[in-house]
Amino acid sequence: MRAIAERVFASETKDENVRDEISMFDVPEDCPILQTEMAHHLHTDDNKEKRWAGGSVTMDDFEVSCKGLFRALTIREKYMKLAYQRFPRTASQYLRNVEGESFKIEDQLQPDFTPLPKSGEDPFDFKTLPKNLGYVARMKEGLIYVYNDAAAADKHQPKDLPCPDYDTFIDDMNFLIALIAQGPTKTYTHRRLKFLMSKFNVHEMLNEMEEMKELKLNPHRDFYNCRKVDTHIHAAACMNQKHLLRFIKRSYRVDADRIVHKLNGKEVTMKALFESLHLHPYDLTVDSLDVHAGRQTFQRFDKFNAKYNPVGASELRDLYLKTENHINGEYFATIIKEVASDLEDAKYQYAEPRLSIYGCNPAEWTKLSGWFVKHRVFSPNLKWMIQVPLCFVQKRHNKYYRYICRNFVPHFGKMLENIFLPVFQATIDPQSNPELSIFLKHVTGFDSVDDESKHSGHMFSTKSPKPEEWDIVKNPSYTYYIYYMYANIAVLNQLRRQRGMNTFLFRPHCGEAGAITHLLASFMTADNISHGLNLKKSPVLQYLYFLAQIPIAMSPLSNNSLFLEYAKNPLLEFHKKGLVVSLSTDDPMQFHYTKEPLMEEYAIAAQVFKLSTCDMCEIARNSVLQSAMSHEEKAHFLGTDYLKEGPEGNDIRKTNVAQVRMAYRFETLCYELNLIMEGLKAEITTFPSTLEHISIFS
Amino acid sequence: MRAIAERVFASETKDENVRDEISMFDVPEDCPILQTEMAHHLHTDDNKEKRWAGGSVTMDDFEVSCKGLFRALTIREKYMKLAYQRFPRTASQYLRNVEGESFKIEDQLQPDFTPLPKSGEDPFDFKTLPKNLGYVARMKEGLIYVYNDAAAADKHQPKDLPCPDYDTFIDDMNFLIALIAQGPTKTYTHRRLKFLMSKFNVHEMLNEMEEMKELKLNPHRDFYNCRKVDTHIHAAACMNQKHLLRFIKRSYRVDADRIVHKLNGKEVTMKALFESLHLHPYDLTVDSLDVHAGRQTFQRFDKFNAKYNPVGASELRDLYLKTENHINGEYFATIIKEVASDLEDAKYQYAEPRLSIYGCNPAEWTKLSGWFVKHRVFSPNLKWMIQVPLCFVQKRHNKYYRYICRNFVPHFGKMLENIFLPVFQATIDPQSNPELSIFLKHVTGFDSVDDESKHSGHMFSTKSPKPEEWDIVKNPSYTYYIYYMYANIAVLNQLRRQRGMNTFLFRPHCGEAGAITHLLASFMTADNISHGLNLKKSPVLQYLYFLAQIPIAMSPLSNNSLFLEYAKNPLLEFHKKGLVVSLSTDDPMQFHYTKEPLMEEYAIAAQVFKLSTCDMCEIARNSVLQSAMSHEEKAHFLGTDYLKEGPEGNDIRKTNVAQVRMAYRFETLCYELNLIMEGLKAEITTFPSTLEHISIFS
Repeated sequence: MRAIAERVFASETKDENVRDEISMFDVPEDCPILQTEMAHHLHTDDNKEKRWAGGSVTMDDFEVSCKGLFRALTIREKYMKLAYQRFPRTASQYLRNVEGESFKIEDQLQPDFTPLPKSGEDPFDFKTLPKNLGYVARMKEGLIYVYNDAAAADKHQPKDLPCPDYDTFIDDMNFLIALIAQGPTKTYTHRRLKFLMSKFNVHEMLNEMEEMKELKLNPHRDFYNCRKVDTHIHAAACMNQKHLLRFIKRSYRVDADRIVHKLNGKEVTMKALFESLHLHPYDLTVDSLDVHAGRQTFQRFDKFNAKYNPVGASELRDLYLKTENHINGEYFATIIKEVASDLEDAKYQYAEPRLSIYGCNPAEWTKLSGWFVKHRVFSPNLKWMIQVPLCFVQKRHNKYYRYICRNFVPHFGKMLENIFLPVFQATIDPQSNPELSIFLKHVTGFDSVDDESKHSGHMFSTKSPKPEEWDIVKNPSYTYYIYYMYANIAVLNQLRRQRGMNTFLFRPHCGEAGAITHLLASFMTADNISHGLNLKKSPVLQYLYFLAQIPIAMSPLSNNSLFLEYAKNPLLEFHKKGLVVSLSTDDPMQFHYTKEPLMEEYAIAAQVFKLSTCDMCEIARNSVLQSAMSHEEKAHFLGTDYLKEGPEGNDIRKTNVAQVRMAYRFETLCYELNLIMEGLKAEITTFPSTLEHISIFS
Repeated sequence: MRAIAERVFASETKDENVRDEISMFDVPEDCPILQTEMAHHLHTDDNKEKRWAGGSVTMDDFEVSCKGLFRALTIREKYMKLAYQRFPRTASQYLRNVEGESFKIEDQLQPDFTPLPKSGEDPFDFKTLPKNLGYVARMKEGLIYVYNDAAAADKHQPKDLPCPDYDTFIDDMNFLIALIAQGPTKTYTHRRLKFLMSKFNVHEMLNEMEEMKELKLNPHRDFYNCRKVDTHIHAAACMNQKHLLRFIKRSYRVDADRIVHKLNGKEVTMKALFESLHLHPYDLTVDSLDVHAGRQTFQRFDKFNAKYNPVGASELRDLYLKTENHINGEYFATIIKEVASDLEDAKYQYAEPRLSIYGCNPAEWTKLSGWFVKHRVFSPNLKWMIQVPLCFVQKRHNKYYRYICRNFVPHFGKMLENIFLPVFQATIDPQSNPELSIFLKHVTGFDSVDDESKHSGHMFSTKSPKPEEWDIVKNPSYTYYIYYMYANIAVLNQLRRQRGMNTFLFRPHCGEAGAITHLLASFMTADNISHGLNLKKSPVLQYLYFLAQIPIAMSPLSNNSLFLEYAKNPLLEFHKKGLVVSLSTDDPMQFHYTKEPLMEEYAIAAQVFKLSTCDMCEIARNSVLQSAMSHEEKAHFLGTDYLKEGPEGNDIRKTNVAQVRMAYRFETLCYELNLIMEGLKAEITTFPSTLEHISIFS
């Protein structure tokens, strides 16, 4: 298996420069792989493949594909459960059915998010923090272990917190790498996806009017008062360019004589700072501010990153867009609270901004949470996430380029320790760091960020150096990062769940660019992802994301400025096929023009892709499901049965999604899952895949 | 000439159903007409063509084209002057040069618009109305004539107000019809347009950074605080769907028990009205309101028109979107004032809403102006226009379909009389109808509306029946309408100019669909147009619109819902070639999603077409030039030299358009005009077409 995986990996690394060619994971549109080629493939593939496929070479391609897809789903299910992440109930029921077991509703795990404070409750209340468990947490081989005490730690006798087994994980990964390159499965999934597309088109032609009728008869609710969540947005770019400009001008009117910065070791006033930049804020415009992405940033992530510096000056980025600076991040907190206040006014819009932890220094968490608590940066309309830039080392493209961890830590293991150890410690003894503990209550997950298109060339395998051994000036691969992020989150969630604390989701940036293996790693580890553009390149993964209903936060306006022209964005295609997509803004400062960036995102998608109201409301519903809103909020915004799948989980009065649409989606998913079960030829009782009351093809 | 025109016309009428084929006016992209074919064309064309082309059949094709284009420009110049409409100074200078005359700045006529009331001045002040001239106005053969008194009128001895000569107009039109179908000219203009496109692309590659640098150094001004005018918007759809919905709900909360409507002859309260529709406003949503265009309206103008009825109920349209109803249009006035107040708050946005005069009844003007004055519907951010639906008769597509003039007037002449006579009378004796006179001060022009794709089949010629003879249940052709609208406006403007009153522009909807001849008629008569999509189909007209710098208000989002998919919109192409385009919303109620429809329009164009800041600011500047803002406002918003063409007319501190761009545009225009002059081989001194200080290809 490892040999196949290496071959596949090597071929992909090579492919990186020939983007337009058809990669190993793709199927040419006009010429699907033929039966003969598939047969050939089966004969030449090595024995291991035959073994896992479970039979002789004469076996039916259909069966091969189904067994592979089945196993892929069980792999994801396993890793989701381990980390208290989500796996759809319907798929689980099918999997149990195949295994001859019965599905129990209790088996379905859900993440825990802190509910909104009740009226009169203070979200920053220190008093209710749980007491110290006295455990000890230590990092070993890139993973944090929890011990009863220091003695147990010294002997490495960790507590029984299930964590992923390293070798099994690599095995599972290699299996999936082989699967996505396997001829029969590529052909099978390609055909199923084509079918899903055509089926939706037929559904649309037959039922569009029916859906519209349902929505017209649905009182009080329309697209405007459906809840929608901006599922992917960076705090440092969550305001639009005009907002930032106005804020800078306003701050100058009030604070010109205030000491706000240290320039060459000397404290200076805002006036002096602007003078040193040869600027007067009155003259400043969005043009001179220069934070908006333009034609220059397309395919240039480095140029894009430089856009985070207002007027190209890192001093202004420090002053206005950082949590740590001479004024303790006061301006940044104020700007975020203004954005939050706009969302609260709009009432139906929410956002999940990301704040950075770099792992360069163990004090980062304390500083960040200190900022959060000091400025009381809380809003019911914001759900917080932590983003970890995947850049252990990075070449400086220009003088403003970002943080380089390698200068601060001796090895990659230390970076991981800086990221996770403080969180474990605050979980074990919340009162030891009350501000961090409060902040963690409001943190809902981890994201990864960075330019995925820089391929590291390293293949993650059993032979990979352990994080403590990774001391070279070279970045680990995306998959390597992802594994260690996931594994630590999984253990952390086990511990937090035991203590009745909120858990964290893993929601990395994935598939914006770079290798297909990124999407494979996220299939194994992530609750949901951002971007996912590259699913276009692998029918097997695309089909698996569909079967497992993995939410994808897409940002077509961001892509339009960076990686992919708007009209070519696969959002519409994914949506039609039944993948769970939501719309997000990524960086309003760089991409958007209006005061309501999320509405701008929806409006443009609606116009360019000619989305119907039902489409838009379905995408909005997806965004709430994908988000880290608490159970109480989701029940309030989507209906109390939202955890049920299919039409019974939909409350049209809250979501404005037609039941006809929900029935179509559910039937379609069940049909595809059923097909896989049939391919396995196991003795399964036919699953109820038709809904008697709502016949969509009538 | 007439024979050619008829042949061309007939061929086009036939072509209507084969839109994808190349029409007589078009040039195939991949296969430009060859020299041989051109020669053939010259040999077979009849003598008249040779005569106007001014020489023998051996003459050079280039010369033929240039002579034709030259004459076309002189035709437009003539009709613009006659009606106090605009013709660019640069083109006039070239024309005079060819004619061996000298250009005098006084020859350049400008329309007159009422300036904003000075501080403390009341825009509704009746006292300053001029006194009665005692003239008599009467309609004869579709034209209003002004006489000294009734006796002169009876003898038809009109005052000397120049008006277009009917036969000359038809001659000019036939010349232009022949020109746009003429092989050499088609090929020549096609090549010039291709060249203009490539030249702009080169300019962009060379100077993009230079332009951006200029803008970055330009203090205080950016795209957000550049003035932009929504150059084409219908008052009855000027609010977005959410605004209308909120207004309806709010009105119900306040006015449920107010008598607002007459239902089957009985006065009813708002509550009773909604009950009769089986509706409660609380339950109303944008879906049930159903005023938004969707996929259903594409290529279906009839379905689109029905969208003007909230909840499909014409009663609600009457109540909320009409000036004439049981509450004297109070709600409509309030909604418009709310839209105006939003624009005033946004500060840099303006709009030119259209109100309807149908011509079914001579009292329409009095009622409309009564509404305007009663509710004081004035805002410095609104410039008013009158739209005349071009529908003398119209089949009813469904029960909600619109007004049919033929039921109210005996012939088309009466419709024209109803449209123009009251305006002439108020111009002659303002005090006889003070409300109308006040209203006319704020009216800036006339627009035409209706579905252009319905081709009437009638060809406008010297044999056409006079308007008084047009009593059949059939619509006159677009050209016929346009001629009579233009001719009356021209005379009216002469009279108003004599009295020192503001004049009116003719700004019809043109080229949204239908025959190419529409764009030809507007080339002769209109100061500027809305839509212009069909310029795509005729290189000759497209090039003429470029040479004469005729502004075009484009609405790509409207087109996207009705006639043409967004990505296929020619806006970007026109802009690159140097046609003067502006962005407008057309009907925010039907097409837009956000609170700022004009910004939504700009944002989407910027994203889809990847416009630079300079592009956007140039389009915004075009919109101010195209608009009917007063001279004082234009000078304030664009700079005091705005009437000068080229970079010296641009004040970058006000417009944020780079001088490099302005120089490029001016040089390019002069180069093309020069080329035509050269083709004429007249003894002209070379015109200064290069600007020494700003060399764009450096």
